[in-house]
Amino acid sequence: MQIRELGEFGLIERLAQIVDESGAGGQPRSDLIVGIGDDAAAWKSRGLVQLGTADILIQDVHFTLETTAWRNLGWKALAVSISDIAAMGGFPDYAVISLGLPSDTEVEDITKLYTGMAEIARQFNMAIVGGDVSEAPLLIISPSVIGRVEKDRMLTRSGAIPGDRIAVTGYLGSSAAGLRMMKKKPELDPVIASALIEAHLRPCPRVSEGRLLGENGVKSAIDISDGLIADLAHICRASGVEARVRLADIPVHPTVQAAFGEGSISLALSGGEDYELLFTAPGGIIERVKQRLSIPVTVIGEIIGGELGKVTILGETGREVEWEKRGWEHFGDH
Amino acid sequence: MQIRELGEFGLIERLAQIVDESGAGGQPRSDLIVGIGDDAAAWKSRGLVQLGTADILIQDVHFTLETTAWRNLGWKALAVSISDIAAMGGFPDYAVISLGLPSDTEVEDITKLYTGMAEIARQFNMAIVGGDVSEAPLLIISPSVIGRVEKDRMLTRSGAIPGDRIAVTGYLGSSAAGLRMMKKKPELDPVIASALIEAHLRPCPRVSEGRLLGENGVKSAIDISDGLIADLAHICRASGVEARVRLADIPVHPTVQAAFGEGSISLALSGGEDYELLFTAPGGIIERVKQRLSIPVTVIGEIIGGELGKVTILGETGREVEWEKRGWEHFGDH
Repeated sequence: MQIRELGEFGLIERLAQIVDESGAGGQPRSDLIVGIGDDAAAWKSRGLVQLGTADILIQDVHFTLETTAWRNLGWKALAVSISDIAAMGGFPDYAVISLGLPSDTEVEDITKLYTGMAEIARQFNMAIVGGDVSEAPLLIISPSVIGRVEKDRMLTRSGAIPGDRIAVTGYLGSSAAGLRMMKKKPELDPVIASALIEAHLRPCPRVSEGRLLGENGVKSAIDISDGLIADLAHICRASGVEARVRLADIPVHPTVQAAFGEGSISLALSGGEDYELLFTAPGGIIERVKQRLSIPVTVIGEIIGGELGKVTILGETGREVEWEKRGWEHFGDH
Repeated sequence: MQIRELGEFGLIERLAQIVDESGAGGQPRSDLIVGIGDDAAAWKSRGLVQLGTADILIQDVHFTLETTAWRNLGWKALAVSISDIAAMGGFPDYAVISLGLPSDTEVEDITKLYTGMAEIARQFNMAIVGGDVSEAPLLIISPSVIGRVEKDRMLTRSGAIPGDRIAVTGYLGSSAAGLRMMKKKPELDPVIASALIEAHLRPCPRVSEGRLLGENGVKSAIDISDGLIADLAHICRASGVEARVRLADIPVHPTVQAAFGEGSISLALSGGEDYELLFTAPGGIIERVKQRLSIPVTVIGEIIGGELGKVTILGETGREVEWEKRGWEHFGDH
């Protein structure tokens, strides 16, 4: 069987299984709290919880140099991993970066790439402390970020329980709209187009928002990278619950709504890479969070004790809507 | 200017400079002890020193699937990062792994890859706790390892001082000999050939040896990945000293000596990937370490306060020997 038949999430489950069965999962380490399968790994270290996460960005899979400026690429490469720490309710502290580069890459371009990474690192009070560089036939950026969180403030994918409301920070769809704009250059107001492209290229990880969720008693969260529905399904699988989402309540980005009309809901549900936080908690906690966050928080549905891992989408009339493309998955048929 | 003109080590210096000047180096973090440029980064965390390192292994740059079994590849990919932690005198604790994979990769092969990684993780009491998987046009493995060390037992590249003896654990050259054997299949006793290939494919990071060095007062070490001379030059540059090495004292692996005769010294000096520890310390400390380590320790030269970063090689007669290929460097002319 080939990886494409298993799909990305099937593969991750398989890898977790191998690691567990071979005794290289949680067993050797009594200090491990969260292993494979969440936004970041978490382990105890002298009363603190350390967080570790890694990502890989590959030329012509995750980005193309024709449409992405090097500086933005640097920003985004690190943003992706910082967002994983935010989704655990933690602070990002340190980054180690592995790079694969063709040997005819311009030093000037790599300088821009690192300038972008340094920019976002500085914004979050992080330090870039090491890594590896290697020759490669194409550009590869593999960031790892180490962070920390207090144990009682940690957010995981597995913390959702029936009765929780489901909520999301900010607006959705602008990153996917920006990507579409970069690829097809539709005739849009250039100011709007560049705002959307900016949303795609320079996402802002929700670190302070994640901190606030943890401080106010939220237990379950994920960042929206694969797409709202796909990421909600990750929470449902990890928590052993079902989610019901109302289409009418999805906070589609107003600019996306104005520019894409009916097509905008699809960008918001499945586009991905918004790097907003999707979380679940009892209604009272969500109300408290709403009052304290400086960005919008929208309740979009609720967690029920139904079919494990299922996400049901309810249309205007309250009837279930079929949703074909549920989010990004590597090795799938795109 | 292109990366190839700058070379791997010039590039690393440039990246460190960008990060520092942009304020994303040590400045934002008073807890940082070692940033870019050592075997691993090190930072204080509640009385402990945490270590973080990352590597990247790319198909047809670092390995070829024609000669490397998947299980060995998994072992080696993680061994490389564990060895960096060993060279800091630390324990490896957790690994996060980023993978790039063609979608027609067999699940069976990835299972073997992860089995190899799990094997070495178990051997060092580590847990594999997360990472990322992505579609890619070729196989990419990017491991990060997080470890720890007591502050007064940490080994760095910058700790060498004039008067130190230079020593190395184990024997050198077997990994490079194994690689040559895999590429050219010379007529050698198959038992010898397979032992050398094993040395190349399944290196054993010197974790307990690194621990013992730190416990006995050694301050300066590096693991031999680029090659003895190249890695010694890293120590000399980081410490601002010169090294003098005696050719006659290099512990060439006896099997390599027997199989390659005169050519064996070149494999030992510049072959790289032996993952032995190269370290410097006063003679008395090295004597103590020699008695306590269960593998050979050989003094090969001394540190002098000469030309910054220089490595001088002395031949049989005590005269300086010119050495052309000094070790592996990415983006160079190989």
